[in-house]
Order: sequence, then C-alpha cells, then structure tokens
Amino acid sequence: MSVLPDSWIFTASCPSKLGTVDVVTRFMAESGHYINEIHSFDDRVSHHFFIRVAFSPAAHFSTDIFRDNFTPRVTPFEMQWQLTPPQHRERVAILVSKFDHCLNDLLFRHRTGQLSIDVPLIISNHPDLCSLAEWHGIPWYHLPVNNANRAEQEAQILALLEQYNIDLVVLARYMQVLSPRMCEKLDGKAINIHHSLLPGFKGARPYHQAWEKGVKMVGATAHYVNNDLDEGPIITQGIQSVDHALYPDDLISRGQDIERVTLFNAVRYHVEKRVFLSGKRTVVFS
Amino acid sequence: MSVLPDSWIFTASCPSKLGTVDVVTRFMAESGHYINEIHSFDDRVSHHFFIRVAFSPAAHFSTDIFRDNFTPRVTPFEMQWQLTPPQHRERVAILVSKFDHCLNDLLFRHRTGQLSIDVPLIISNHPDLCSLAEWHGIPWYHLPVNNANRAEQEAQILALLEQYNIDLVVLARYMQVLSPRMCEKLDGKAINIHHSLLPGFKGARPYHQAWEKGVKMVGATAHYVNNDLDEGPIITQGIQSVDHALYPDDLISRGQDIERVTLFNAVRYHVEKRVFLSGKRTVVFS
Amino acid sequence: MSVLPDSWIFTASCPSKLGTVDVVTRFMAESGHYINEIHSFDDRVSHHFFIRVAFSPAAHFSTDIFRDNFTPRVTPFEMQWQLTPPQHRERVAILVSKFDHCLNDLLFRHRTGQLSIDVPLIISNHPDLCSLAEWHGIPWYHLPVNNANRAEQEAQILALLEQYNIDLVVLARYMQVLSPRMCEKLDGKAINIHHSLLPGFKGARPYHQAWEKGVKMVGATAHYVNNDLDEGPIITQGIQSVDHALYPDDLISRGQDIERVTLFNAVRYHVEKRVFLSGKRTVVFS
Amino acid sequence: MSVLPDSWIFTASCPSKLGTVDVVTRFMAESGHYINEIHSFDDRVSHHFFIRVAFSPAAHFSTDIFRDNFTPRVTPFEMQWQLTPPQHRERVAILVSKFDHCLNDLLFRHRTGQLSIDVPLIISNHPDLCSLAEWHGIPWYHLPVNNANRAEQEAQILALLEQYNIDLVVLARYMQVLSPRMCEKLDGKAINIHHSLLPGFKGARPYHQAWEKGVKMVGATAHYVNNDLDEGPIITQGIQSVDHALYPDDLISRGQDIERVTLFNAVRYHVEKRVFLSGKRTVVFS
Repeated sequence: MSVLPDSWIFTASCPSKLGTVDVVTRFMAESGHYINEIHSFDDRVSHHFFIRVAFSPAAHFSTDIFRDNFTPRVTPFEMQWQLTPPQHRERVAILVSKFDHCLNDLLFRHRTGQLSIDVPLIISNHPDLCSLAEWHGIPWYHLPVNNANRAEQEAQILALLEQYNIDLVVLARYMQVLSPRMCEKLDGKAINIHHSLLPGFKGARPYHQAWEKGVKMVGATAHYVNNDLDEGPIITQGIQSVDHALYPDDLISRGQDIERVTLFNAVRYHVEKRVFLSGKRTVVFS
Repeated sequence: MSVLPDSWIFTASCPSKLGTVDVVTRFMAESGHYINEIHSFDDRVSHHFFIRVAFSPAAHFSTDIFRDNFTPRVTPFEMQWQLTPPQHRERVAILVSKFDHCLNDLLFRHRTGQLSIDVPLIISNHPDLCSLAEWHGIPWYHLPVNNANRAEQEAQILALLEQYNIDLVVLARYMQVLSPRMCEKLDGKAINIHHSLLPGFKGARPYHQAWEKGVKMVGATAHYVNNDLDEGPIITQGIQSVDHALYPDDLISRGQDIERVTLFNAVRYHVEKRVFLSGKRTVVFS
Repeated sequence: MSVLPDSWIFTASCPSKLGTVDVVTRFMAESGHYINEIHSFDDRVSHHFFIRVAFSPAAHFSTDIFRDNFTPRVTPFEMQWQLTPPQHRERVAILVSKFDHCLNDLLFRHRTGQLSIDVPLIISNHPDLCSLAEWHGIPWYHLPVNNANRAEQEAQILALLEQYNIDLVVLARYMQVLSPRMCEKLDGKAINIHHSLLPGFKGARPYHQAWEKGVKMVGATAHYVNNDLDEGPIITQGIQSVDHALYPDDLISRGQDIERVTLFNAVRYHVEKRVFLSGKRTVVFS
Repeated sequence: MSVLPDSWIFTASCPSKLGTVDVVTRFMAESGHYINEIHSFDDRVSHHFFIRVAFSPAAHFSTDIFRDNFTPRVTPFEMQWQLTPPQHRERVAILVSKFDHCLNDLLFRHRTGQLSIDVPLIISNHPDLCSLAEWHGIPWYHLPVNNANRAEQEAQILALLEQYNIDLVVLARYMQVLSPRMCEKLDGKAINIHHSLLPGFKGARPYHQAWEKGVKMVGATAHYVNNDLDEGPIITQGIQSVDHALYPDDLISRGQDIERVTLFNAVRYHVEKRVFLSGKRTVVFS
C-alpha cells in the first residue's frame, strides 16, 4: 500500500489488552497527528497485539516531545514502539557470493528509488561481482571463506557491520553457512533468501531435491536468520509453476525471478516497518 | 482475513478530518469493546475516510445503547456508520438465466457455511435451473422476459425483492439487460458478474471479442450495478492465462472458474462489510 | 488445450531411440489420419520418450485395423501405446468422507459436461453426503470403516470397482489410510488430493502444520496413489497466498478452492490422456 | 521448456493439409536427426499449420544439405520454414527513453546468459541511460526527437539498424509514437511493451486510465509493432492485483515488474522461435 511522502510510521506491539488501539489513536488525535492509514491485528493464539500507523504529524513535531508525552501513557501496556521518519533510509549491508540476480535487482531498485535504503557496503566471499558494486559506487569487501578462516572472516564481517553502522543485513544468495555465533549476532537483523518453499527442501541444492520429487511448483522463501538453519521466521514466499520438461538446471534459471522478487518484497516490507516478529512466525501488514 | 465468531463489525465513512479514527476507537475503548482488527484508509484524492473495525463487545451490549451514545460524538464528522452483528445473514436474491456455474457455486458455499447469507428466493427467465433450486429447498420464480413484457416482469421482480425483504441482489449470469429504471432501483444493492476484465470487452460476447484480439489473458469482473451498463463500480476481478489453442467456446468453458470465484469473492466482501463505494470506485478491505 | 469433438487421442511411450516420432507420424499420414495437435517429449535423464497426438481419422477407421497395421511397425521400439476414441468416457468411482467441496465440484463438472466421465458409483465411510449423490442420480455405497473391519471393507470396495468396471478411482478427501494391499491394487489407477504442497506437510493435519511454521503460501497436491503414503507421483499442484490473520481453521476453509480445482485438473489431465508415469515423476502435456 | 545445448530449432508454417507433420518428421528420421521435442498446432479457424521441432542433428550436418534435400519435399505444402542453429544469437537493437527498468532487466539477462542475444547498440531519445549502456560495453546512440526532426531521426534509426545488421528491435519503454512508415518498416520485426492489458487502456497514461476506472488488476502487453498503434499482434501479457490504496504513481511503480518480465518473456519466446504470426493473432509454443 501507498504512503504519503511526508508520512511518519508508528509501529508497536504488546500483550493483548483492552485499550491498545485507543492508547495510540487517542494520543495521535490529541497531538494533532493526522492518521493516513492504520492497520492492527490482535493474535488470539499468542494473545499479542500489533499495530502500524502512517500519519502526517502536526506542526512543530519532534520525536523527543512524542516520546516524552507518549511513554507514560503506554507504560501500563508494556508496549514496544518505534517511530520512523519519512526521510528514513535503513542502512543495509548486502552479502553475496557468485549469483548476482538478487544483488542486481536490489541495486537497481535502490538506484531508481523503489527501495528507500542506503547500501554503504557489499561483502562477498568471491571477487566476481566487484565491478557491479563499483558501477553503483558502493564499497566492496572481498572476504574469501574457507574452513580454516571462517571464524576470523565472520569477525571481520561483524566489525564491518559495526563500522558502517548497519541496520539490516541481506543475504542475497550468500552461499556460506553461518556459524551459530554469527546467527545469534544477526538474529532478527538479517534477511536470507532460500530457493525453495520452506520448510520444504531445506539445506543444499533445493532445486535438485524438487526435481527428484517431481513437484509441479517451485518457490522461494525470504526469512529472518536465526540460530536454526533455514528455520527462521518466514517473511514472504514466491511461487512458480514448472513442468516435466525442466531439468534441475532449468529450475535454477527459472527460479531466479521468483528469488529476486521475493527477497525484494521482504526487504521492502522490513524497511517500511510492515513486519513484526511473533514467536517463530511473522505478522506482515503488506 | 478471519474474524472471531462473536465479532461485531463496525463500518463507517466520512469526509477526511483530524480525529476520524479517534472518535471511533476512543468510543470503543470507553465502552469496553475489544478491538480484534482495525483497518482504515484516508483517500487523499477524494478526501474521504473509510474504516472497518471488528470488535468483541462488552457485556450487556445493545445496538440501541451504542447508537444513543455514539451518535452525538460523530455528528461533527458527518459520519455514515453501520453495525453488523456476528449472527447477521444478509438476505440475498439470486437472478440467473441458463448458465449455472455461478449459481451452483454460490449455493454450495451457502449450504456449507462458507458464505453467511440467506437465499430466500431465486429468480430466472428460464426454467432450466429449477431443480437445482429445489434440491437446496429455495423458492424458485420463473419470470420469462421478452421485449413486450420486460417492464411488467421487472416490476414483478421488484415486488418479490420487496416481499422477501431482500438486502442484496446477485446477478449470477442473468443474461438480460436491465432497464434504466431497474438499474436505478438496484443502484449499489446489486452485484453483477461480467465475463471480461472490464472496462475491456464491454457488452455482448466478450470471450469472442477477446479471441478476436488474440489476448493471452481473459478474466471476469464483479461490479455493482448502476445506470451505466457494465460501468458500475468494480469490486474485484479475476484472471486466467489462455493461449492460441483455445477457441471462443473453450474460453467460455475455461472462464467459468474465474467467473464463479470472482463473483463469490465480491459477494463475500460485500456481506462481510469490506466494500465501500467511493464515487465510481470502491475501497475494499480484503 | 482444446481438442476437436471428433478427435481421437493416441498416446505412447518407449525408450528413447531415433525414429520414435517418425514411426507414429508416418503411419498417421499413410493411413490418412489428420493430425490436429502433437506433443512429444524426450526425457534425457530417464532416456524415455512420450508422445500424445490428437487426430481426425480417415474414413472407415477402425481400431482393429489401426492395431493390426501399426503393431508390427512399433515392435522394434518396444512402444506402449493406447487409442482413445472421442466418445470415450472413463468410468470413475469417487470415494469421499465428510468434506464435500471436491465431490460437489466433480459432480458439477460431470453434470455440465466440463468433465467427460461417467460416475457409476460413489463410496463413502460416512452417510452425510448421500443426498448429494441421490440428486445426481448416482448409486451410493455407505461402507463405514473401523480398525476391526478395514480389510473387509477394502475387499468390498475392490469388489464394487470390479462389478462396476471402474477405470479410475478418485479419492476426493477420503479420510482413510489405505492398506498396502489396497494401494498396490490401485497403483496408478487412483488419484488422491492432499491438502498441502507435497512433499511438505505429509500426513495428518497439514494446514495445522503449515500454520505452525508460519508459511505464507498453502497449497494442494493431486497425485497417483502408490504404496508409499503421500509419496505417489505428483500430477499437479495448486497454491494460495495466506497471511498471519488466518488461523488453522481459516486455512482449512480457504484451502478448499485450491483443493477442488487441483483435483479437477488432475482428473481432467488423466482422462484426456495427458499424464504419463515416468518413474516417481509424471510427464503432463497440459 | 528446456532445450538441449546442441539442439537446432526447426520452425515452419503452411496451409492446413494432410501430411504436414509427416513431411517434416519423416525427413528428420531419414536424415538421422534426433527429435528432442516437437510441438504442432493446426488452427481450425484460419486453416493454418504451425510446427516447432528441437532436434540434435546427425553427424556431418549442414544447413545447405538440409535445404537442398528438404526443399523439394515441402514445395507441395507451400511451407515457410526456418532453421536456427544452437549457437544462434539474434542481433537485437534496444530503443529506450528515460525509464530503465526494462532496459536494465534485458541487459542483466543478456549479461548473465538467460537471454541468448547480442545487443550491438542501444538507441535513445534522451541522454539519461547512457552510462548503463557504457557499463555493459554497448554502443549508445542519442537521437533526440521533436516534431521538426522526427522523419530525419527515424531515417537515422533505420540506417543504424541496417548498419548493425539488426534482426529484432525491442522498444523497451521508448516513448515516441512511430510514424506509419517506420511501423511498416518494422512490421513483425519489432516488439513493444505497453503498460496495460491491451486492448484496454490504449494510448497515453494507461495507469491513470486504470486508476480512474477503479480496476483491481493492472497489466502489461508485449506485442509486435504494426501500422496500427497499440494494435499489433499480442505475444504475451502479465498481470498484477492492485487495490484502492494505490494511486496512479503507485501503479506506475508497481507495474514496472510486470512490464519487464512480460517484455523479457516476449523477447525470449521470439528469439527461441516460439512465436508465429497468424493474422492479427499469434501462436506461441511457450
């Protein structure tokens, strides 16, 4: 859905309780903030409440004043909340290996304004895609990984994320299994694209697995990284019909379009503050 | 989206103005009504506001008390609003000719509870589908139409709608052009299914038109009836890929699945109070 | 794809070899049979050849003459082949339990001619759907199953299939696990609909499994029954997007449309001779 | 569908007649050419026959020998036919204005081998996208167009197409109406992408037209250029669901994914010799 160019985004979640919507919307009205769009969901299984509000603030708006006035009101609700300004651009680091369909797609959308993010750096374990980064004027770090240096290179990656003040890591077909420690560090702050309809065909060579099973549909899954390989909370999924005439190599080629669109959608939902973690699941106001 | 079995639905629209959300949600909170889901949209072209709230009411709830207490609050907003109880079943009259794919689908979903409506009568200008109505135990009226008796039969239909206290008319492939007077009477209270992606291929034999043009996709459009043929506000549309090997008769056959699902969705959106008229367009919280 | 009303269907498969197409098409030309559509596929992994030809036969056509003249030509190719006349209607037995969305859909398409089959009988382990069968004038057999009588009832089912000279069994949400012996008897002659995107979510309560995993897409799989539960060769699959607001019961309800369309497509492909078994996979000329 | 890396493509069309398939397949068999895939269609309205064969040739294959031996056989059929070698790369000129989503997509797929074409030059009436061409190492011609110089610039374009020996012109959002003379020159040799589901919303600003009508689906159409604006034979179409919350500018942005995939598919079908002209319609073996 569309958002006014000057819209701030307010997002929040808390345990379910009478008045969760009112405590937000009443404050908005009393402060003179104009609500452009509101979406809430109250999960009756987990008993948790989620809300996203796009609003045009009153004159003389400041986040400090908002915080000072709003915080005491929501204390009884144990509400976690966040304000995102209209000019906000998440700082995104992209990790990639040799396949560039996802990287090319993200950079294209970044360049043309479809994706309001900054990409301060790209990290790869292979040198192949360096010139693509260069053309976009983005610093490129080549950190080859083998079993001997994995811990060292992961530490180097974490240092770069720190140095560049990164908000979100996107694994755009980064073909390295992350260590448990790395996963823990990135928990909820990294999005991965897996080339199957998870939880089906976890692990390596999912298109080959799909071909063996003779499935008539293949897909892609964008999910948050957590410490359980290919089991992180799913953000969005994409699908494509296939038939008997496609061999595993064809599936790999055909799947690229689904992978890149699915990853783009996940990144967009994330930076537009449409995704909420809810245990092992997500709430997505798409 | 799913709704709790005991959820009431509150819907409203009014000119855009600061506080439109608050006037609703504050009342809900103060009255002890628990909001399960809320969706609002503020149209910045037409400057109109739309909201749909699903809520579990406080104990001792009555619509009279709700009305008495809520009305004075929204008077300054010129808000049109409506309350729909969880047990509510819209009274739907189905008009049909000879094709029964839409009728069969609606009756199946009615019978199995997918569509929470009552169908007090079915009207047709042909006798063919009478036994289908009988099996479902629904009164059947055969009102054959020709140029001589059209006005008379339309009056008869209107009398039946009155007699049966009908809320919504569904034209489930009713192959008669309604008179302007009839259209006016049904304005906003009747849903038609047209077998093309309107506004493309208006009028008669749309699949033949589509075949002539060699299109690679055909579709169906569910829209409200108004006094401009095939130009009423669109509620939803469905699509199907086709290829060169399909002749017009094949398109007619293949299109039936899209027609019936599209019509079902439109009726469902309507009776679940998800559709708002907004000039010649609709707002649909699907 | 569409087929002329008077088209015969020729289907064949054999090991890959030079001349497999020619041996078919040359015979057609020399016999004066007019080819309306031809589709072949040569699987370069299994080294097997598949072909489907729709043709309008020459005058004075007889299957006996076709067989006598064609057989010697294809002997060197070890070709398995089959001729299906245009008037052919496969004799289909439907097995069902309590959910009737698939049964209703199949009977509707059978009644309206979308599906060119005969349905000589319906078998159920529950009495609920008897009246639906009656309205369509189809004999109904109620064979309740429990652990004590399973073998006996399966024998009874097999006897009925024999008695009614059944070509194809359709498990239209028949909620009984078949015994290995029964599976063996039905191998390649029965189509089942499973309410997940197999091989994901095999076994019981797949929508609940899908909800637990927080997937954003659910689907259905139509497959041949074999002796490995939910592992038979996949014929076709369908998909539907879902979101966080849908609980397992909603998934069950929403999934019905995908299940019935997916099962219909599989039955249609089968009776139109578009499906070929190829090991654990299928070749489908759709 | 997939094709062996060493597959030649044979395509042909001719008036419908007994033996059209046989004259092709018998020659293939007698010449020792191994058929990997065959697809034919006999249009019973236009009475025209279309066939596409992928084959692995016998040793010592030459197109000259093929032509010399095959030509006399098909003379009685008035067959138009074409042989395309596996190494064949169509020479494609891309014309573009300021929007680069289609150009970027085509160049990406060209660079990564998804699209087996050569792109010897890019022509634009604006300077904006020059650096994108440069990065891909493709000659760039800036030919600004106004009403005074239109004829001159079109002549210049035609001269460039001649000079570079171009097989196919792709109008990748080239926002200039071509003169009738230009259209005639490009008839059947140029593919355009229009940002609507033609024939709906022809002409300018189709997304604005779509928004005005309140449609719930927008799309894109790839078609051959002919001398009737936006009326050339349709090759393929793509679709996207939209809702009330999307304003015309949002539709423009959201439509870009459909436009680029639809244009890519059309170009792929064309260069893989899957498209046949059939009057104002196309036959596409996709």
